[in-house]
Parts: sequence; structure tokens; C-alpha cells
Amino acid sequence: MSGQNEGQPGRKVAVIGLGSMGYGMASTLLREKFDVAGFDVSPEVLARFTRDGGRGAASPAEAVAGADVVVCVVVNAAQTGAVLSGPGGCLSAMERGAVFLSCATLSPDEARAFARDVEAAGHAYLDAPISGGAQRAAAGELTILVSGAGSTVNTARAVLDAMAERVYELGEAVGDASAFKIVNQLLAGVHIAAACEAMAFAAAQNLDLRRVYEVITHSAGNSWMFENRMPHVLDNDYKPRSMVDIFVKDLGIVADIARKDRIPVPIASAALQLFLMTSAAGMGRDDDASVARLFERINGVPVTGSVKE
Amino acid sequence: MSGQNEGQPGRKVAVIGLGSMGYGMASTLLREKFDVAGFDVSPEVLARFTRDGGRGAASPAEAVAGADVVVCVVVNAAQTGAVLSGPGGCLSAMERGAVFLSCATLSPDEARAFARDVEAAGHAYLDAPISGGAQRAAAGELTILVSGAGSTVNTARAVLDAMAERVYELGEAVGDASAFKIVNQLLAGVHIAAACEAMAFAAAQNLDLRRVYEVITHSAGNSWMFENRMPHVLDNDYKPRSMVDIFVKDLGIVADIARKDRIPVPIASAALQLFLMTSAAGMGRDDDASVARLFERINGVPVTGSVKE
Repeated sequence: MSGQNEGQPGRKVAVIGLGSMGYGMASTLLREKFDVAGFDVSPEVLARFTRDGGRGAASPAEAVAGADVVVCVVVNAAQTGAVLSGPGGCLSAMERGAVFLSCATLSPDEARAFARDVEAAGHAYLDAPISGGAQRAAAGELTILVSGAGSTVNTARAVLDAMAERVYELGEAVGDASAFKIVNQLLAGVHIAAACEAMAFAAAQNLDLRRVYEVITHSAGNSWMFENRMPHVLDNDYKPRSMVDIFVKDLGIVADIARKDRIPVPIASAALQLFLMTSAAGMGRDDDASVARLFERINGVPVTGSVKE
Repeated sequence: MSGQNEGQPGRKVAVIGLGSMGYGMASTLLREKFDVAGFDVSPEVLARFTRDGGRGAASPAEAVAGADVVVCVVVNAAQTGAVLSGPGGCLSAMERGAVFLSCATLSPDEARAFARDVEAAGHAYLDAPISGGAQRAAAGELTILVSGAGSTVNTARAVLDAMAERVYELGEAVGDASAFKIVNQLLAGVHIAAACEAMAFAAAQNLDLRRVYEVITHSAGNSWMFENRMPHVLDNDYKPRSMVDIFVKDLGIVADIARKDRIPVPIASAALQLFLMTSAAGMGRDDDASVARLFERINGVPVTGSVKE
């Protein structure tokens, strides 16, 4: 598989973390004729990846052997740290000068700390949070926010372009791309929580929620998240596309930065508390629109698009 | 002017309130060859309306003489009450069976109370809140949410169709259209406040805010209001398109309903407090994106798209 690309820099890739996002990104790279090794903690996922034409590896260290670019697609800072420096970690196994492309949503401080570790070991680091969801990951249509040294971006450019519809190059400073991502997550989390609050409010006014959806999506009250998530609420379908606990984490990062830098974020704080209540009520691993079910339980009024009797 | 339409029902119209929305709606009706009488508290506005081909009236009562449809485009319940029953009010002067089309954002209870008064006087009432802004009002491209008796909607249909790109007919119950509008205002207010909070947060992280605008408007954190209002913040331009105090009022209606019906609205409450702080800080009559200037004052960090030194 690697024959036609041998010797071309940036064509040998390791993807660490084959979850809903990582699997799609690795599949896209395979489709685009990159030589892709993958690692995941789940043996089933790894077996599937091998069947799909990838090279399965037993550890991050094994996956990165020979790779020019290491794409790390895990959930948070703890997992990113484990990928680098945990048992079987890849930091000491990476090729000298290889690029570690970090896709988890991290705080800018966490991103900078990882970059220091990676660079101290003789490699290059790109701050590269992603957005767009599993479907766009599988289609190679992600949005990727990137910051880091221009030469490092160039080394990784073929990989970035294969995985993304849009790559925003946000400067040389590692941490800046993470800061942009966190601003997006602040808004995304607030918009989901507000959408659920508004739907619960509308339900309590006895309005037809499918009609509310139609009116709002054509009005000034619309948001990307309202339009995308409220169909889950209307259909009473809370299987997780993205989980409540992701926003407990991401709005938690917002709250940490806000406290550290003394920037009040009253709306994001109210949204964080709603995700936290939803998680505390047992729905942490359900779809993030489950905030609507929290209101349902509190108010005792169904929040759904089903016809009411 | 009324010659060609004489005798056609729904062609003789009074527009009460010639502010940024009402003026545009009255102009649209003139353009569409309706016979339009207008009233406004400002003599200058009234003189301009007469120059533009309308019939200026000295009071709501004078304006509604002979009109099939009375379009009331004022700011709130107090003004709507004054138009109906204040000095020179139109309630006793309307033609028997004429339609009072109420466009102010009201609580559903207020809308129902006005409907009772109008119907008791022998006329018909339509709950008809509008959205879309001054430019769309002038172009005849508003969104109008309507509830009320089907026969009343039919009487007013030519007027509604002339003024609106989209008319949502939301059932026979007066109050329901107002409830839909209030759900929209809940979201719109939250989204403006959250957008300002996010921009202030981004500014404190020293990010290029024009770049933030570009990234967010292409990401899942986008909202109609973020896209529409944040250019005011980037340009540091707070001349009012829509004022802070409008959201103090509209989120106040949300808060009143929420308390009365026992429906918690934690995010809308946080947003209301931000608009209230902005108003208390002297910016109540400035553009509603002024919440960004509140954060600017609090944080001591400019929130603007100008190049920083």
C-alpha cells in the first residue's frame, strides 16, 4: 500500500484513537492512498480497521514507527498525555522531526505544555482541534483549526487537506487554535442549552414544537445547534451523536480559563450548570440535547414533537 | 388614491406607529396601492409620511376612520393600550368589524386581554407579531406570525401578504402567535448576549476578533444573531438598529411568564441580567450588541476588530 508514496514526506501517517472521529479520519486517509497505521484501546475497533485496509498497531509506540505525521484523535488532555507518555506511549518512539498533530479540545495552556514535551523530544507539534462531527470526518470534510510553526504546517499539509474541507491557519503560536476552538465550544454549548430551555418553555406554553422548530429555523432566533440538535428532541431520540459529558468538559475548560484570567462568563456558566445537572441526573453519556429531558423531568411537561392527546 | 380600490375589502388601511418598522410597512402598503392613513406621535415623521404619499392623521382615532384593517406597530403593551384606549385612541372610532392587527411583542396574556377589549367593542383582533428588521419592513419582506379567527385572517390577508415574505398561520387562538414570538426572543436575546460574552472572552485571550468572526460563522458555534450583530462590535459601531432596552423588555416578558407558570429559564435569566447591566450602565438606547461594551468596561480589554498595537 505504501509503495507509490514511499519517500514522499507526509504520506506515512499514524492515527491514534479510532473513535467516531478518528475512524473516519483514518478511513479518509486510507481512501486518499496514505499509508496509515492505527491504534485504539478497543481490540474490536482495531480488527475492523485492519479489515478495512489499515495497519493495526498494538500501542501508540508501535503505530508511530516510520510515520511522518501522528494524528492524535482522543477526547481530552488526560488521554493525550497517556498517548504521549503513558505505557506504550509514542513520545520516545516517534521518528525524529515527525509532526504530532493534536486534535483533542484542550485548553491553550495544556496545548502549550504538550508542545513543550514534544519539542523537547525532538519532534514538532501542531495545535489542531477539529470540528464537524463523525459524518464529515468520514467524508474528509472536517473543519480544522491549526496553529504552529509554518514549516510544521507544511509538513502536515497533505494530511490536513485530505481530512478537511476547511483548514484555518491561525498563526505560529501553539495554543491559539485551541483558544479559537474553546470560543466555538462556549457558543455551541450555550446554544444547545438555550435551545433545550426554549423548547421546554414552548412546551409549557402548549405550543406545537414541530411548528416552533419550523418558525425558529426561519427566524432571528436560529442557531446552528438549534437547527442540528432539536430534531433529536422532537423525535425523543437521545442516542449519543455527541455526549453531554463532552460539554461538561469543554465548558469546564471555559470556566477554568475564565477564573484564571478573571473574565466573567455568566451565560456559559449557566449552560455548564445545566449540562452538569443533566449529567448528574444520569444522562452524561447520552446525546447532548438531553438537557431537554432534564427540563422535562423538572417541569413535568413532555418536550417532544409527538402529537399530544 | 383610494379610487381604484374603493369597495374592495382590506384595501383601506391605517398604520399606527411610523417608527423604523411601521414606516417601512406603511411605505410598502402605499407601494402596493393600498389606501393608507398613518399616525405617529412625531410631527416630523408624520410630515415625511404625507410627503411620501400617505394620509397623515392627527390621532389614532382619525387614522382608523373608514379603514378595514388597522396595523398597530408600537413597541409594547403600554403603547398598544394607549393606541386603543388613550386620548385620541382608536377603539371607539374603528369601523364596526374592522381588524385590529397587533404587531408589538406582547405576552400571550396581554394579547388575549387586548383581544377581549377589541372584540367587546365589535371589532376583530389578530395577534400578529413581526420580525425581520427595518430593511425587510421597507421591502415588504417581513416574517409575520399570526393567530386568530380564520375569517379575520382572510380579511387581513392582502395586507399581511403585502408586508410579509412569510406569514406563519399559527392557529385560531389569540396569544399563540405571541407565545411563538416570545420563544424566538428568548433565543435571540440569549444569542446576542452569548455572542458578546464569547467575543469578550476571545479578546481577553488576545485573539484576532475578525478572524474569530470568520471561524465562528463557518462553525457549529454560529447563530443568526452572532452573524448579524458581531459586525457592529468589530466596527465599534453602536448606533441603534435595535436597542438594548428592547431585550430588557422581551426577556422581561420571558421572566414574567416563567415565574407565573413555574418554568425555570436559567440561561434567559443570565442574559436578561446582562442586558439590564448594560442598560443600567447608560447604554439602554444604544444598539443591543452593546453588551460587548459592558464586558469591555468590566474586563478592561477592548472588544473590537481594530488592529491592536
